[in-house]
Amino acid sequence: MAALRKTSLIAVTMGDPAGIGPEVILKAAAARARRPGAPSLVVIGDPDVMERAAKGQRGVPRLCQWSPGDAAIPLANGIGLLECVRMGSRAPAPGRPNITGGQASFDCVVSGARMALKGEVDGLVTAPISKEWWHRAGHDFPGHSELLAKLARTPTWRMMFGGGQLRIALVTVHIGLAEVAPALTRDRVFQTIRLLADHLKDQLGCSRPRISVLGLNPHAGENGLFGQEEIKIIAPAIARARREGIEANGPIAPDTAFIRQGGGFRFDGAVAMYHDQGLIALKTLEFDRAVNITLGLPFVRTSPDHGTAFDIAGRGLASGNSMAAAIEYAASAAQTRRTNGRRAA
Amino acid sequence: MAALRKTSLIAVTMGDPAGIGPEVILKAAAARARRPGAPSLVVIGDPDVMERAAKGQRGVPRLCQWSPGDAAIPLANGIGLLECVRMGSRAPAPGRPNITGGQASFDCVVSGARMALKGEVDGLVTAPISKEWWHRAGHDFPGHSELLAKLARTPTWRMMFGGGQLRIALVTVHIGLAEVAPALTRDRVFQTIRLLADHLKDQLGCSRPRISVLGLNPHAGENGLFGQEEIKIIAPAIARARREGIEANGPIAPDTAFIRQGGGFRFDGAVAMYHDQGLIALKTLEFDRAVNITLGLPFVRTSPDHGTAFDIAGRGLASGNSMAAAIEYAASAAQTRRTNGRRAA
Repeated sequence: MAALRKTSLIAVTMGDPAGIGPEVILKAAAARARRPGAPSLVVIGDPDVMERAAKGQRGVPRLCQWSPGDAAIPLANGIGLLECVRMGSRAPAPGRPNITGGQASFDCVVSGARMALKGEVDGLVTAPISKEWWHRAGHDFPGHSELLAKLARTPTWRMMFGGGQLRIALVTVHIGLAEVAPALTRDRVFQTIRLLADHLKDQLGCSRPRISVLGLNPHAGENGLFGQEEIKIIAPAIARARREGIEANGPIAPDTAFIRQGGGFRFDGAVAMYHDQGLIALKTLEFDRAVNITLGLPFVRTSPDHGTAFDIAGRGLASGNSMAAAIEYAASAAQTRRTNGRRAA
Repeated sequence: MAALRKTSLIAVTMGDPAGIGPEVILKAAAARARRPGAPSLVVIGDPDVMERAAKGQRGVPRLCQWSPGDAAIPLANGIGLLECVRMGSRAPAPGRPNITGGQASFDCVVSGARMALKGEVDGLVTAPISKEWWHRAGHDFPGHSELLAKLARTPTWRMMFGGGQLRIALVTVHIGLAEVAPALTRDRVFQTIRLLADHLKDQLGCSRPRISVLGLNPHAGENGLFGQEEIKIIAPAIARARREGIEANGPIAPDTAFIRQGGGFRFDGAVAMYHDQGLIALKTLEFDRAVNITLGLPFVRTSPDHGTAFDIAGRGLASGNSMAAAIEYAASAAQTRRTNGRRAA
């Protein structure tokens, strides 16, 4: 089915209805609608919440009922709207999350994942949900990625961040700094390199990606002086990746890894050992363009790099830039994936 | 004595004579000599080594014998040269370090520190030495800072890095990542905040410095979810600093700490918990302008942010930019310190 579409069809889940999700989706769509080659969008959500968010916003394409199997709507003509829930009077007001909203945001992600798994859409972008309100609604997932991995039966996945120039995959993510060193294994580092290499090839069109693998310790350990992890874990993982044909280099000193030389970086993607090692560089250089990507899923999935921001929801203050970047990234990745798929077929 | 000088007099130690030190000192001096308000420089080293390094370099002010008590030489007229050692035929060739050179580089630092302690110069800049060759010459200091702290009888000092815009002090430095969390104490974090605040006031002229203190863990621990260090160590250290009148804020999420808002940072200086937390941001944003500063010494001390680079020494390839930035920083800090001192007197 995917091959019939000229431009990508991207599903966007509404996120927590009390957060900035509905608002930033429409802002991003409005900004994107004017440009040529925009992907078609279908929002998975509550029609009333989306209509409420559209009020007073300028340049938003109109919302058009859409169901799987319907033709994709060019973004200039409208945004597809798939009714996944209808909360009616139990819908939360902006900034005032409740359990109904938490459950609704969960249902939208499940619905989006199923559509992506069936190939009814080319990619999935998720607006921010609240972990706390998922939990109160009875769903104990730390975030989208874990839920999507479960639905897709993906045992090995990684979090990656992409900006205008940087693509960084993380070996470990939401754990304390003291737990990082014990969590590193050769296999975990290797799998991260492999998943990043696959993504760069299949979804970003990099035929022979160069991957820089960071060390864990200052100066990448300085030959074991400040830690053994480079010698015992990271270097062997890089060696394995190279044996499997991946152009992986390192372990490189973390503090000089992101210095641009001659206007660019020395790599197509980098592997960071822990959250802040990758994200300090990324957010310092590319705040507002940073996109969260899940590697290892059988479909393209991105999300903006911000939370529900309940404190400013519904006030028109949220920026749609990160959501626009997430949609853009997903559309481009999906397009490349389809082209590669046709070539392989 | 210092008050008699109009511009700052900065001592620069030659560094390892087989490294790029002599060369980058002269390059930096040549670049700086043309500009108004340049500090006077006195190089502490081996006259033959310095003359050798000057050969073939363009625009280098001539080297003039100088001793403590002599009038400072305006940089446009020449570079003061204090003969600390004369190695003769035992001097190492560029790129071929030896024990004589290691010892000489050690002696120059000792001599420079004594001059700085006596107020014979306004600040000290050190060219790179080799830890290994200090060790072979019988001196077991991990680096300049430890030697200077010992000579100055300074029990509490910290490493800081400054660029064009960022000033970052480090609580821990050259230890493995796994050792960072156990090394943090309230007192260590507090002392770092205090030393940075003093530096910003006394040497950079910031009357009421705003200091951002980073967390240790992702999202600064997210209320204890990813580690307790923010709650048990960092927040109490910040509270103590605030009680003592320092405008310290945090713990803030490390990954968003260095995002510029409206063209600038939200702070005058930042405190990072470990080496790469501070240096990834600094080097990513300000490579080549980064200067190493020792906080807590009774005199101004900076150094360029690179090593001996034995592999390219004597070939004219080394950039003098970081040395020029180190001299500039020291001269400006010394000037501010003298102005503040006069005001206090």
